[in-house]
Amino acid sequence: MNGKRQENRTQISSISTSPLEALREIMHKENVHACMIPTTDPHIGEYTPDHWKTRQWISGFTGSAGTVAVTLDKAGLWTDSRYFLQAENQLRHSGIELFRMGLPGVPTPEEWIKNQLSSGNCVAFEGSVYAASDALSLSAYFEKYRIQVQSDFAPYDAIWKNRPAIPLHKAFILSDHFSGENARSKISRLLNEMRANACDCTLLASLDSIAWLFNLRGNDIEYNPVSVCYAVVSEKEIVLFIDPQKLTPETTEYLQNEGILLAEYETVYPYIQNLSSETCVLITPNKINYRLYTAIPKSCTIKELSTHPVDRLKSVKNETEIAGFRNAMQRDGVAWMKFLYGLNKQMDERQTITELDVSRQLKKFRSEQVYFFSESFETIAAYGAHSAIVHYSPTEETNVPVLPEGILLIDSGAQYFDGTTDITRSLATGAVTDEMKKDFTHLLKGNIQLSCIAFPQGTVGTQLDVLARQFIWKEGQNFLHGTGHGVGHFLNVHEGPQSIRMNYNPTELQPGMVVSNEPGLYKAGQYGIRIENLLLVIPYRITEFGEYYAFEILTLCPIDKKLIDWSLMSPEEIRWLNDYHQKVYDCLSPFLSEEERDFLFRLTEPESETQQKDHTLAY
Amino acid sequence: MNGKRQENRTQISSISTSPLEALREIMHKENVHACMIPTTDPHIGEYTPDHWKTRQWISGFTGSAGTVAVTLDKAGLWTDSRYFLQAENQLRHSGIELFRMGLPGVPTPEEWIKNQLSSGNCVAFEGSVYAASDALSLSAYFEKYRIQVQSDFAPYDAIWKNRPAIPLHKAFILSDHFSGENARSKISRLLNEMRANACDCTLLASLDSIAWLFNLRGNDIEYNPVSVCYAVVSEKEIVLFIDPQKLTPETTEYLQNEGILLAEYETVYPYIQNLSSETCVLITPNKINYRLYTAIPKSCTIKELSTHPVDRLKSVKNETEIAGFRNAMQRDGVAWMKFLYGLNKQMDERQTITELDVSRQLKKFRSEQVYFFSESFETIAAYGAHSAIVHYSPTEETNVPVLPEGILLIDSGAQYFDGTTDITRSLATGAVTDEMKKDFTHLLKGNIQLSCIAFPQGTVGTQLDVLARQFIWKEGQNFLHGTGHGVGHFLNVHEGPQSIRMNYNPTELQPGMVVSNEPGLYKAGQYGIRIENLLLVIPYRITEFGEYYAFEILTLCPIDKKLIDWSLMSPEEIRWLNDYHQKVYDCLSPFLSEEERDFLFRLTEPESETQQKDHTLAY
Repeated sequence: MNGKRQENRTQISSISTSPLEALREIMHKENVHACMIPTTDPHIGEYTPDHWKTRQWISGFTGSAGTVAVTLDKAGLWTDSRYFLQAENQLRHSGIELFRMGLPGVPTPEEWIKNQLSSGNCVAFEGSVYAASDALSLSAYFEKYRIQVQSDFAPYDAIWKNRPAIPLHKAFILSDHFSGENARSKISRLLNEMRANACDCTLLASLDSIAWLFNLRGNDIEYNPVSVCYAVVSEKEIVLFIDPQKLTPETTEYLQNEGILLAEYETVYPYIQNLSSETCVLITPNKINYRLYTAIPKSCTIKELSTHPVDRLKSVKNETEIAGFRNAMQRDGVAWMKFLYGLNKQMDERQTITELDVSRQLKKFRSEQVYFFSESFETIAAYGAHSAIVHYSPTEETNVPVLPEGILLIDSGAQYFDGTTDITRSLATGAVTDEMKKDFTHLLKGNIQLSCIAFPQGTVGTQLDVLARQFIWKEGQNFLHGTGHGVGHFLNVHEGPQSIRMNYNPTELQPGMVVSNEPGLYKAGQYGIRIENLLLVIPYRITEFGEYYAFEILTLCPIDKKLIDWSLMSPEEIRWLNDYHQKVYDCLSPFLSEEERDFLFRLTEPESETQQKDHTLAY
Repeated sequence: MNGKRQENRTQISSISTSPLEALREIMHKENVHACMIPTTDPHIGEYTPDHWKTRQWISGFTGSAGTVAVTLDKAGLWTDSRYFLQAENQLRHSGIELFRMGLPGVPTPEEWIKNQLSSGNCVAFEGSVYAASDALSLSAYFEKYRIQVQSDFAPYDAIWKNRPAIPLHKAFILSDHFSGENARSKISRLLNEMRANACDCTLLASLDSIAWLFNLRGNDIEYNPVSVCYAVVSEKEIVLFIDPQKLTPETTEYLQNEGILLAEYETVYPYIQNLSSETCVLITPNKINYRLYTAIPKSCTIKELSTHPVDRLKSVKNETEIAGFRNAMQRDGVAWMKFLYGLNKQMDERQTITELDVSRQLKKFRSEQVYFFSESFETIAAYGAHSAIVHYSPTEETNVPVLPEGILLIDSGAQYFDGTTDITRSLATGAVTDEMKKDFTHLLKGNIQLSCIAFPQGTVGTQLDVLARQFIWKEGQNFLHGTGHGVGHFLNVHEGPQSIRMNYNPTELQPGMVVSNEPGLYKAGQYGIRIENLLLVIPYRITEFGEYYAFEILTLCPIDKKLIDWSLMSPEEIRWLNDYHQKVYDCLSPFLSEEERDFLFRLTEPESETQQKDHTLAY
């Protein structure tokens, strides 16, 4: 079979067969009538290494979300509204039809397949790139229609010419100096949690979960300082499944000293298949792939949790991590101030600055800071109408100059060894309209109200979300992304389980959690605004009514007063802004040149709290 | 067996056997090792007719919540913290041990029984007084420990001397003039909902659900204008199971004209047992009793919903019901003003007024209003430290005079043919402390902020709850009841499925829903404060971001300005209060005498919006 496949490949390359044709040839031979290709990888992460960009390879579509379904004579790509235009362009002449998810009457990929196939036909997918929970729903769906499911269909090595290898960058240890807790202690806390769940074994595939647990970092995924690997933690032994080429002698020594056994990356599958019967395995079905799930012997008991104990432990930062965050924020703020000073100067001197220049300059100032490792996501530097595109990042094709009017939105962040940053500022580059100021001020008021809330133990983000939205809701406006996401410590910039969203999330906010506060507003074709600070949940008060928590603002960067309509601000909100700006000035000014410091001083000068009245009267 | 039981009863009465002894005798004979007696009735309502107060009869405990468990040599009563003291007193010498629910280490009734019994023993309960969902959990629990479950254990008729009969008050029809929709039309909408769920039959046991569906009202339950009955709605026929003694010729005629068949109350069980196979039955397992649930033939399909379509339809008031609510609120407000005028006069004249006087006087003024039917719940008239007891109602034993200092809290409401009211006002009867004013003002601010919110379609109450709590949370304070409950139209004052609470409730707020807004604060031994208005969800705006809703305040009654600390109020909040008071004055003054109108004028006089500043400076 292998040999035959090899032969196919030779044939295919010789007649320049397209990926789609090559796939159909194999489907035909293996009696597969339909095949599904998702965007995820075996670690179910937000960013996928090139090796697993199968969907992009087969379709040419480069967006970050989408599914391809292929039958023997048809093919479709499903993606969401962010990518309708891009997908339309990239799919032209591909023979793949675009299905616009969320529009009325558009079937799901599985509905579409069901309608193409007959009972007894076979649908196939690669189980290792589907979350177990998703593959289980898919299988249940197709079973209902008596369509057979083949979940180990992985012909891509054979037909994908020059398929990129699995990344092999060196892993490294984040020292206890930064992490604040050694791996042995974290593992011990995890084992306690497992015992509380009456489990003696757990599988981990999420790269950031493993990275946190073992104090391991890497360079395999852009923006996420993680290394491709799996882990199994049991009462018997702790095993890290990782390619040995990634390990330096120092890394190996640290891991072994912490009691961690090392094994080859792919041997996780036979390892799980050989778990002794009666093992009780704790898993989170949306965080491990389906191949891992099906490898668990039938004789084992499976305990499913919606949030893995590691992710719960990881979300609560320890004192060292919190101190690191505060320090990283200071350096990030200094980089921002140097950038803002330069931007202002260039704008004053009427130099041409493009969106890409903005990205590059901000990255340059950050990279000059101590402990800088990388950016934490692709910078959104969006001028004018581009700022209304929530997921816009400038490319050579879309790049435009920043003009001295309207709004420049910059959402960016960095990975430092002692913390991860994520900040959005919307800047007036010149004259702005009253409408822009009104919108900005409503968002700022929402940002302030959320920052200022105190709340009892047991509160979840869903309960607080309205605080950020209340002023724009009054205008009949909304934003459809979350108000806040969790943030990792020198790890993924999007980290669960906590969030602040309109949808229900049962995770309680706990002291030590870091969460963003980023209300936004987007007027297509005109402008977009977002104001984002990171917040730390801190203890507030203990009273006869119980324990209360509050937020500390971690982010240190001025908020552009040129965009504020003071008549809409209450005296308390103006006082908040003055206090925040005072803190920004105090924290950043010691690290700035005199010119930069003067500039920061102007940006953070306090405003009169009674401005409101004057403005109201002047109307 | 029946004859034997009869004999027992004679014996028992002759030797004055206690209820507990009589029960144990039967348990012994029937090989039952433990027995559970809950507070609910076959209709799973909030209020239980005397006939089903079995738990009260066996234990002597009169509280509104609790479960009794009896073994052959032990007995326990489980109740929550509201009733610890009362239960302690009432259980003295009963041979029944008090279990304080919620305290650490206190087992549940089923855990306690499990610990008393051995595998193979039998636990029994009366399935008709357990919600199906609760009985299913109980059965599953005991099965785990191989304890047999007998769910049709109902010996109480035989051993309960002078057991009260099932109430037989006359039912009556709420005319279309008040309901705004005839029963035929409501049934037709229900059938559409059932078809959308692919069901052809549904069982209803909730008295208010049936009352709404058939425009039927009654007098069987105090405060709830409902009639004891069951209903089955199917594509084939609509059947109301009700004692014929309750039906006047007019009621019978209306129901028959609307296509509703009539059957004896208890025949619902054989009727369900005889449902034709293949019937798909829609039920809500927490709203029908377990005996009904088990009567459904195995050959039928059961579709379980967490909210019954009738309750969803009922919660959205039509134009006639909304107009009725507005009119009822006006009359309720007039009654309140006459009461407040009289109270003020009596206090001025230094007459002695007790809590019970307050209840009686308020009821008297309400009962003089057109369309008055009854109160909608037992009035809470709580002076001083009593106001800190959330569920306090004065009795001859607890009654105290209202003194000219501190706070009088009155939470009360009425059933009118055109609407149901529920209002709480906290009144300063003389001097109040700064702490009282601060607490009152924080609650008022919360009440105002919730009243003023606008929100997009899809919003649930959980998202809005924080608006009412934010100011007291900042003080490390909270209240543990919900901020808001739904309210029926000339029906139960507590009506789902919507609510505004800290806990998650997935029900979306829709225009036409009525919900209370009642933040409170309770300082044990000192005072309690609550401010409650009823709100109507109304359409607000339709924008490019979608549909937005807001609240209209239905309740019309002044808020006591003597309890406000103006320095804590924003100009916008003072403006809100002035506007609300203007509306109260405009709506109520035409129906008052000159003296009452003058009094209302003083209570609702506008305050300067800039008071805040003056007060701040004066400090």
